Amino acid sequence: MFHAPNPPAISTEIRAKLHGARVAHLATVNANREPHIVPICFVYDGSVFYSAIDRKPKKVPPSHLTRLKNITQTPQVALLIDQYDDEDWTRLWYVLVRGQAELVSAPAERNRALDQLRAKYSQYRSGMVSDDALILCITPLRVTAWGSI
Amino acid sequence: MFHAPNPPAISTEIRAKLHGARVAHLATVNANREPHIVPICFVYDGSVFYSAIDRKPKKVPPSHLTRLKNITQTPQVALLIDQYDDEDWTRLWYVLVRGQAELVSAPAERNRALDQLRAKYSQYRSGMVSDDALILCITPLRVTAWGSI
Repeated sequence: MFHAPNPPAISTEIRAKLHGARVAHLATVNANREPHIVPICFVYDGSVFYSAIDRKPKKVPPSHLTRLKNITQTPQVALLIDQYDDEDWTRLWYVLVRGQAELVSAPAERNRALDQLRAKYSQYRSGMVSDDALILCITPLRVTAWGSI
Repeated sequence: MFHAPNPPAISTEIRAKLHGARVAHLATVNANREPHIVPICFVYDGSVFYSAIDRKPKKVPPSHLTRLKNITQTPQVALLIDQYDDEDWTRLWYVLVRGQAELVSAPAERNRALDQLRAKYSQYRSGMVSDDALILCITPLRVTAWGSI
Protein backbone atom coordinates (compact mmCIF):
# COMPACT_ATOMS: atom_id res chain seq x y z
CA MET A 1 0.00 0.00 0.00
CA PHE A 2 1.16 3.48 -0.81
CA HIS A 3 1.92 5.71 2.17
CA ALA A 4 2.01 9.45 1.76
CA PRO A 5 5.27 10.84 3.14
CA ASN A 6 3.48 13.86 4.57
CA PRO A 7 -0.31 13.59 4.72
CA PRO A 8 -1.61 17.06 3.81
CA ALA A 9 -3.37 19.20 6.41
CA ILE A 10 -7.06 19.43 5.51
CA SER A 11 -9.37 21.91 7.25
CA THR A 12 -12.66 20.91 8.87
CA GLU A 13 -14.58 22.87 6.22
CA ILE A 14 -12.86 21.06 3.38
CA ARG A 15 -13.31 17.69 5.08
CA ALA A 16 -17.04 18.36 5.27
CA LYS A 17 -17.11 18.96 1.50
CA LEU A 18 -15.12 15.78 0.84
CA HIS A 19 -17.46 13.72 2.99
CA GLY A 20 -20.63 15.28 1.63
CA ALA A 21 -20.06 15.21 -2.12
CA ARG A 22 -21.82 12.49 -4.14
CA VAL A 23 -19.69 12.79 -7.28
CA ALA A 24 -16.08 13.65 -8.03
CA HIS A 25 -14.09 13.98 -11.24
CA LEU A 26 -10.97 11.90 -11.65
CA ALA A 27 -8.17 12.78 -14.06
CA THR A 28 -5.61 10.15 -15.00
CA VAL A 29 -2.77 10.24 -17.54
CA ASN A 30 -1.24 7.68 -19.86
CA ALA A 31 2.45 7.23 -20.69
CA ASN A 32 2.13 9.71 -23.59
CA ARG A 33 0.91 12.47 -21.25
CA GLU A 34 -2.62 12.27 -22.60
CA PRO A 35 -5.12 13.02 -19.84
CA HIS A 36 -8.43 11.26 -19.31
CA ILE A 37 -11.27 12.38 -17.10
CA VAL A 38 -14.31 10.64 -15.74
CA PRO A 39 -17.00 11.26 -13.10
CA ILE A 40 -16.79 8.85 -10.18
CA CYS A 41 -18.66 7.81 -7.07
CA PHE A 42 -16.36 7.64 -4.08
CA VAL A 43 -16.04 7.59 -0.33
CA TYR A 44 -13.55 9.56 1.72
CA ASP A 45 -12.65 7.72 4.91
CA GLY A 46 -10.83 10.68 6.46
CA SER A 47 -7.46 9.80 4.99
CA VAL A 48 -7.91 8.20 1.54
CA PHE A 49 -10.53 8.03 -1.21
CA TYR A 50 -12.02 4.78 -2.49
CA SER A 51 -13.85 4.21 -5.75
CA ALA A 52 -15.24 0.98 -7.20
CA ILE A 53 -14.52 -0.34 -10.67
CA ASP A 54 -16.96 -2.99 -11.65
CA ARG A 55 -15.61 -5.93 -13.60
CA LYS A 56 -18.74 -6.53 -15.65
CA PRO A 57 -17.96 -4.91 -18.98
CA LYS A 58 -21.59 -4.54 -20.06
CA LYS A 59 -22.54 -2.64 -16.93
CA VAL A 60 -19.81 -0.07 -16.99
CA PRO A 61 -18.53 2.62 -19.32
CA PRO A 62 -15.40 1.79 -21.32
CA SER A 63 -13.59 4.63 -19.57
CA HIS A 64 -13.29 2.35 -16.55
CA LEU A 65 -10.65 0.43 -18.47
CA THR A 66 -8.78 3.55 -19.56
CA ARG A 67 -8.51 4.74 -16.00
CA LEU A 68 -7.07 1.40 -14.89
CA LYS A 69 -4.54 1.33 -17.71
CA ASN A 70 -3.57 4.91 -16.98
CA ILE A 71 -2.85 4.43 -13.29
CA THR A 72 -0.56 1.51 -14.02
CA GLN A 73 1.36 3.81 -16.38
CA THR A 74 1.08 6.94 -14.22
CA PRO A 75 0.07 6.62 -10.56
CA GLN A 76 -0.35 10.36 -10.03
CA VAL A 77 -3.96 11.51 -10.40
CA ALA A 78 -6.10 14.56 -9.75
CA LEU A 79 -9.50 14.39 -8.08
CA LEU A 80 -11.86 17.35 -8.12
CA ILE A 81 -14.86 17.82 -5.86
CA ASP A 82 -16.85 20.90 -6.69
CA GLN A 83 -20.07 22.87 -6.63
CA TYR A 84 -20.24 24.55 -9.99
CA ASP A 85 -23.82 24.19 -11.16
CA ASP A 86 -24.94 27.39 -9.44
CA GLU A 87 -25.68 30.47 -11.55
CA ASP A 88 -24.69 32.65 -8.58
CA TRP A 89 -20.95 32.51 -9.08
CA THR A 90 -20.24 33.83 -5.57
CA ARG A 91 -21.35 30.43 -4.26
CA LEU A 92 -19.01 28.31 -6.40
CA TRP A 93 -16.24 26.28 -4.81
CA TYR A 94 -13.93 23.41 -5.54
CA VAL A 95 -11.46 21.18 -3.77
CA LEU A 96 -8.60 19.80 -5.86
CA VAL A 97 -6.82 16.72 -4.57
CA ARG A 98 -3.54 15.75 -6.14
CA GLY A 99 -2.51 12.24 -5.16
CA GLN A 100 -1.39 8.75 -5.91
CA ALA A 101 -3.75 6.00 -7.13
CA GLU A 102 -3.45 2.26 -6.82
CA LEU A 103 -5.69 -0.79 -6.78
CA VAL A 104 -6.43 -2.12 -3.32
CA SER A 105 -4.92 -5.59 -2.98
CA ALA A 106 -5.58 -6.47 0.68
CA PRO A 107 -8.96 -8.27 0.90
CA ALA A 108 -9.81 -6.72 4.29
CA GLU A 109 -9.26 -3.19 2.98
CA ARG A 110 -11.19 -4.04 -0.19
CA ASN A 111 -14.19 -5.28 1.78
CA ARG A 112 -14.12 -2.31 4.12
CA ALA A 113 -14.09 0.09 1.16
CA LEU A 114 -16.99 -1.78 -0.50
CA ASP A 115 -18.97 -1.58 2.73
CA GLN A 116 -18.35 2.17 2.92
CA LEU A 117 -19.38 2.64 -0.70
CA ARG A 118 -22.57 0.64 -0.16
CA ALA A 119 -23.33 2.59 3.00
CA LYS A 120 -23.04 5.86 1.04
CA TYR A 121 -24.83 4.88 -2.18
CA SER A 122 -28.16 3.04 -2.07
CA GLN A 123 -27.59 2.19 -5.75
CA TYR A 124 -24.61 0.07 -4.73
CA ARG A 125 -26.67 -1.63 -2.03
CA SER A 126 -29.24 -2.68 -4.64
CA GLY A 127 -26.70 -4.57 -6.71
CA MET A 128 -25.08 -1.89 -8.88
CA VAL A 129 -21.63 -3.01 -7.83
CA SER A 130 -20.29 -6.57 -7.90
CA ASP A 131 -18.77 -8.24 -4.89
CA ASP A 132 -15.62 -8.73 -6.96
CA ALA A 133 -15.37 -5.10 -8.09
CA LEU A 134 -11.89 -3.65 -8.12
CA ILE A 135 -11.32 -0.85 -5.65
CA LEU A 136 -9.20 2.14 -6.49
CA CYS A 137 -7.51 3.90 -3.57
CA ILE A 138 -6.38 7.51 -3.94
CA THR A 139 -3.98 8.82 -1.32
CA PRO A 140 -3.98 12.63 -1.20
CA LEU A 141 -0.60 14.33 -1.37
CA ARG A 142 -1.73 17.92 -1.87
CA VAL A 143 -5.13 19.48 -1.33
CA THR A 144 -6.06 22.95 -2.53
CA ALA A 145 -9.39 24.71 -2.40
CA TRP A 146 -11.00 27.76 -3.93
CA GLY A 147 -14.21 29.72 -3.58
CA SER A 148 -17.10 29.67 -1.15
CA ILE A 149 -15.97 27.05 1.39
CA MET B 1 -3.79 27.92 -35.10
CA PHE B 2 -3.95 24.21 -34.58
CA HIS B 3 -5.87 22.27 -37.23
CA ALA B 4 -7.18 18.83 -36.46
CA PRO B 5 -6.06 16.37 -39.15
CA ASN B 6 -9.42 14.58 -39.05
CA PRO B 7 -12.20 16.42 -37.22
CA PRO B 8 -14.14 13.73 -35.35
CA ALA B 9 -17.70 12.86 -36.34
CA ILE B 10 -20.08 14.09 -33.63
CA SER B 11 -23.75 13.06 -33.59
CA THR B 12 -26.62 15.55 -33.36
CA GLU B 13 -27.48 14.27 -29.88
CA ILE B 14 -23.96 14.79 -28.61
CA ARG B 15 -23.76 18.23 -30.22
CA ALA B 16 -26.91 19.22 -28.34
CA LYS B 17 -25.24 18.23 -25.06
CA LEU B 18 -22.09 20.16 -25.94
CA HIS B 19 -24.08 23.29 -26.78
CA GLY B 20 -26.39 23.03 -23.78
CA ALA B 21 -23.97 22.39 -20.93
CA ARG B 22 -23.07 25.31 -18.65
CA VAL B 23 -19.98 23.75 -17.07
CA ALA B 24 -17.27 21.36 -18.23
CA HIS B 25 -14.26 19.84 -16.51
CA LEU B 26 -10.85 20.34 -18.06
CA ALA B 27 -7.89 18.06 -17.37
CA THR B 28 -4.39 19.24 -18.24
CA VAL B 29 -0.99 17.66 -17.58
CA ASN B 30 2.43 19.01 -16.74
CA ALA B 31 5.78 17.78 -18.01
CA ASN B 32 6.03 15.33 -15.08
CA ARG B 33 2.75 13.65 -16.08
CA GLU B 34 0.91 15.14 -13.11
CA PRO B 35 -2.71 15.84 -14.04
CA HIS B 36 -4.71 18.88 -12.99
CA ILE B 37 -8.44 19.34 -13.24
CA VAL B 38 -10.68 22.36 -13.03
CA PRO B 39 -14.31 23.26 -13.76
CA ILE B 40 -14.66 25.71 -16.64
CA CYS B 41 -17.23 27.81 -18.41
CA PHE B 42 -17.02 27.37 -22.15
CA VAL B 43 -18.71 27.77 -25.49
CA TYR B 44 -18.77 25.21 -28.26
CA ASP B 45 -18.97 26.88 -31.65
CA GLY B 46 -19.69 23.67 -33.54
CA SER B 47 -16.05 22.85 -34.17
CA VAL B 48 -13.92 24.05 -31.25
CA PHE B 49 -14.36 24.95 -27.56
CA TYR B 50 -13.43 28.34 -26.12
CA SER B 51 -12.85 29.21 -22.49
CA ALA B 52 -11.77 32.52 -20.94
CA ILE B 53 -8.86 32.94 -18.56
CA ASP B 54 -9.03 36.24 -16.77
CA ARG B 55 -5.76 38.07 -16.22
CA LYS B 56 -6.78 39.68 -12.94
CA PRO B 57 -5.17 37.48 -10.30
CA LYS B 58 -7.48 38.56 -7.47
CA LYS B 59 -10.58 37.62 -9.41
CA VAL B 60 -9.60 34.14 -10.43
CA PRO B 61 -8.56 30.89 -8.80
CA PRO B 62 -4.84 30.07 -8.85
CA SER B 63 -5.61 26.98 -10.91
CA HIS B 64 -5.99 29.31 -13.89
CA LEU B 65 -2.23 29.65 -13.90
CA THR B 66 -1.60 25.92 -13.55
CA ARG B 67 -3.73 25.20 -16.56
CA LEU B 68 -1.84 27.74 -18.66
CA LYS B 69 1.55 26.39 -17.62
CA ASN B 70 0.37 22.85 -18.29
CA ILE B 71 -0.83 23.45 -21.83
CA THR B 72 2.49 25.02 -22.79
CA GLN B 73 4.17 21.85 -21.51
CA THR B 74 1.53 19.41 -22.78
CA PRO B 75 -0.99 20.59 -25.39
CA GLN B 76 -3.16 17.46 -25.14
CA VAL B 77 -6.13 17.90 -22.82
CA ALA B 78 -9.36 16.15 -21.86
CA LEU B 79 -12.67 17.94 -21.53
CA LEU B 80 -15.64 16.26 -19.89
CA ILE B 81 -19.25 17.38 -20.17
CA ASP B 82 -21.59 15.34 -18.05
CA GLN B 83 -24.84 14.92 -16.16
CA TYR B 84 -23.90 13.07 -13.02
CA ASP B 85 -25.80 14.75 -10.21
CA ASP B 86 -28.87 12.57 -10.68
CA GLU B 87 -29.60 9.86 -8.13
CA ASP B 88 -31.36 7.86 -10.87
CA TRP B 89 -28.27 6.34 -12.43
CA THR B 90 -30.12 5.29 -15.57
CA ARG B 91 -30.20 8.97 -16.55
CA LEU B 92 -26.46 9.63 -16.23
CA TRP B 93 -24.36 10.50 -19.26
CA TYR B 94 -21.07 12.01 -20.24
CA VAL B 95 -19.23 13.19 -23.29
CA LEU B 96 -15.45 12.98 -23.19
CA VAL B 97 -13.50 15.16 -25.60
CA ARG B 98 -9.83 14.46 -26.11
CA GLY B 99 -8.10 17.31 -27.89
CA GLN B 100 -5.42 19.89 -28.29
CA ALA B 101 -5.39 23.18 -26.37
CA GLU B 102 -3.73 26.46 -27.25
CA LEU B 103 -4.15 30.13 -26.49
CA VAL B 104 -5.94 32.09 -29.20
CA SER B 105 -3.55 34.62 -30.70
CA ALA B 106 -5.56 36.14 -33.57
CA PRO B 107 -7.43 39.21 -32.23
CA ALA B 108 -10.48 38.59 -34.43
CA GLU B 109 -10.89 35.04 -33.17
CA ARG B 110 -10.29 36.21 -29.59
CA ASN B 111 -13.04 38.83 -29.85
CA ARG B 112 -15.44 36.42 -31.49
CA ALA B 113 -14.90 33.88 -28.70
CA LEU B 114 -15.40 36.56 -26.02
CA ASP B 115 -18.63 37.63 -27.70
CA GLN B 116 -19.85 34.03 -27.71
CA LEU B 117 -18.93 33.57 -24.05
CA ARG B 118 -20.73 36.78 -23.09
CA ALA B 119 -23.77 35.75 -25.11
CA LYS B 120 -23.91 32.44 -23.22
CA TYR B 121 -23.14 33.69 -19.68
CA SER B 122 -24.89 36.74 -18.25
CA GLN B 123 -22.19 36.80 -15.55
CA TYR B 124 -19.62 37.58 -18.23
CA ARG B 125 -21.85 40.32 -19.65
CA SER B 126 -21.95 42.00 -16.25
CA GLY B 127 -18.20 42.36 -16.07
CA MET B 128 -16.99 39.01 -14.75
CA VAL B 129 -14.51 38.70 -17.58
CA SER B 130 -11.96 41.32 -18.67
CA ASP B 131 -11.70 42.57 -22.21
CA ASP B 132 -8.09 41.42 -22.17
CA ALA B 133 -8.84 37.92 -20.89
CA LEU B 134 -6.84 35.15 -22.50
CA ILE B 135 -8.88 32.70 -24.53
CA LEU B 136 -8.14 29.02 -24.55
CA CYS B 137 -9.14 27.10 -27.68
CA ILE B 138 -9.63 23.34 -27.50
CA THR B 139 -9.77 21.49 -30.80
CA PRO B 140 -11.42 18.08 -30.44
CA LEU B 141 -9.53 15.11 -31.85
CA ARG B 142 -11.61 12.29 -30.39
CA VAL B 143 -15.08 12.38 -28.87
CA THR B 144 -16.60 9.50 -26.93
CA ALA B 145 -19.89 9.33 -25.07
CA TRP B 146 -21.56 7.07 -22.57
CA GLY B 147 -24.96 6.71 -20.94
CA SER B 148 -28.33 8.25 -21.48
CA ILE B 149 -27.73 10.46 -24.54
